[in-house]
Amino acid sequence: MSPTAAIIVIGNEILSGRTQDININHIAQKLAIAGIKLKEARIIPDDRHVIINTVNKLRAAVDYVFTTGGIGPTHDDITSDCVAEAFGVPNEIHPESFKLLEHYIGAENFNEARQRMAYLPRGAKPIANPVSIAPGYVIGNVYVMAGVPQIMQAMLDNIIPTLRHGKPILSKSWYAYQASEGKVAKDLEAIQKKFPQTDIGSYPFYNESKQNGVALVVKGQDQQAVENAAQDIYNLLVNMGYQPHEGEPQK
Amino acid sequence: MSPTAAIIVIGNEILSGRTQDININHIAQKLAIAGIKLKEARIIPDDRHVIINTVNKLRAAVDYVFTTGGIGPTHDDITSDCVAEAFGVPNEIHPESFKLLEHYIGAENFNEARQRMAYLPRGAKPIANPVSIAPGYVIGNVYVMAGVPQIMQAMLDNIIPTLRHGKPILSKSWYAYQASEGKVAKDLEAIQKKFPQTDIGSYPFYNESKQNGVALVVKGQDQQAVENAAQDIYNLLVNMGYQPHEGEPQK
Repeated sequence: MSPTAAIIVIGNEILSGRTQDININHIAQKLAIAGIKLKEARIIPDDRHVIINTVNKLRAAVDYVFTTGGIGPTHDDITSDCVAEAFGVPNEIHPESFKLLEHYIGAENFNEARQRMAYLPRGAKPIANPVSIAPGYVIGNVYVMAGVPQIMQAMLDNIIPTLRHGKPILSKSWYAYQASEGKVAKDLEAIQKKFPQTDIGSYPFYNESKQNGVALVVKGQDQQAVENAAQDIYNLLVNMGYQPHEGEPQK
Repeated sequence: MSPTAAIIVIGNEILSGRTQDININHIAQKLAIAGIKLKEARIIPDDRHVIINTVNKLRAAVDYVFTTGGIGPTHDDITSDCVAEAFGVPNEIHPESFKLLEHYIGAENFNEARQRMAYLPRGAKPIANPVSIAPGYVIGNVYVMAGVPQIMQAMLDNIIPTLRHGKPILSKSWYAYQASEGKVAKDLEAIQKKFPQTDIGSYPFYNESKQNGVALVVKGQDQQAVENAAQDIYNLLVNMGYQPHEGEPQK
């Protein structure tokens, strides 16, 4: 069985519409390559009760939980307090991280707010942050990362090799201009039934040059089944008079 | 009390990393303007059990639930079946929508797959889709929309005026290059405590030209409190030697 995962994005700035989240997509791509199945992603507010409940709910449901956001030095950074409470442990100074941060920031500027970034839930293991030193960490099966994309990505690069990997999820896509979902739907369903070990998706596109069409995507962990299903889809499109191609449509 | 909302993005293509969701951000912005508080957003797979449970859980928790995705003609479009089951009603032909779609597509091309787009849960009221006719709908407090952003946005424009609005959520942002969160954190927390009716967030930015800094954002429904808190933050930044400005930093 492939390992499973969930993402918790913690941040009022996403729910208010101020910020377009790009972390979910990045994590999703890295997990797919590692053969880890992303079951769900939730965006939640900077709210103690909600954070604690969501962490506890999802860490019981999947193999790996990834959180982003809320581990900086300001009053709205409450993730570590909440994760500690979710695990029933104190949030306390992590001496090694304290020293690293003190050295990086300089003792004279290492004020109380900045010291908060050296507090980890007891038992957590820090995850290196080459961008700005303040660490992420793992406790149990919960990986706590920064919200700033550059920092999150660096932390994730350190995390991925430590996870149990599944068979990579392979993907093959056909793009067909002028094709319509309604025309291919019936035959596509038959192909899906013929290859139940694959997951076939149909995604219409409407791009700026009005080159409308459909992208048909096969995903799965069985390479032969993915290739055979993709071949059937290719034949279907050609038989209908379309010219399927593999690249993304031009914008 | 402001009305509350949740978003359910239904789509394997988001969880696989194939597609970057942009619907949550768009809906979040429109809700903020309407004074409707977005409490949570969830991205879930094309899975019957998960869709039904999530719809039932969230429609009980907030005033308005918005779903995107899964209402097209292909086998992976299972949202309407699931929403019908969540409400305990049949998913059946909606005669008015059937006629509209048949007219738009042409009777000779209006096959079984395309007819699926004219099935709505019993009691649902259609939401017009000026882009491709196949309607969204509302049932109870659940608004079911397409996943294609252009179509979703058109549907949402038809929905927003029908919702109960709250006081708009006002926002004021200061961007300060070279400022660091750790330096302002303590005073910022004091400002947050002085204006508890506002929600003050601190967001570091690292842009491509290496012009690092911090964005400090005040949000709230009390205009005077938002303005006063923003003024205090401006003064704080100036006193620390920064030059705060209102615009987004240059990329």
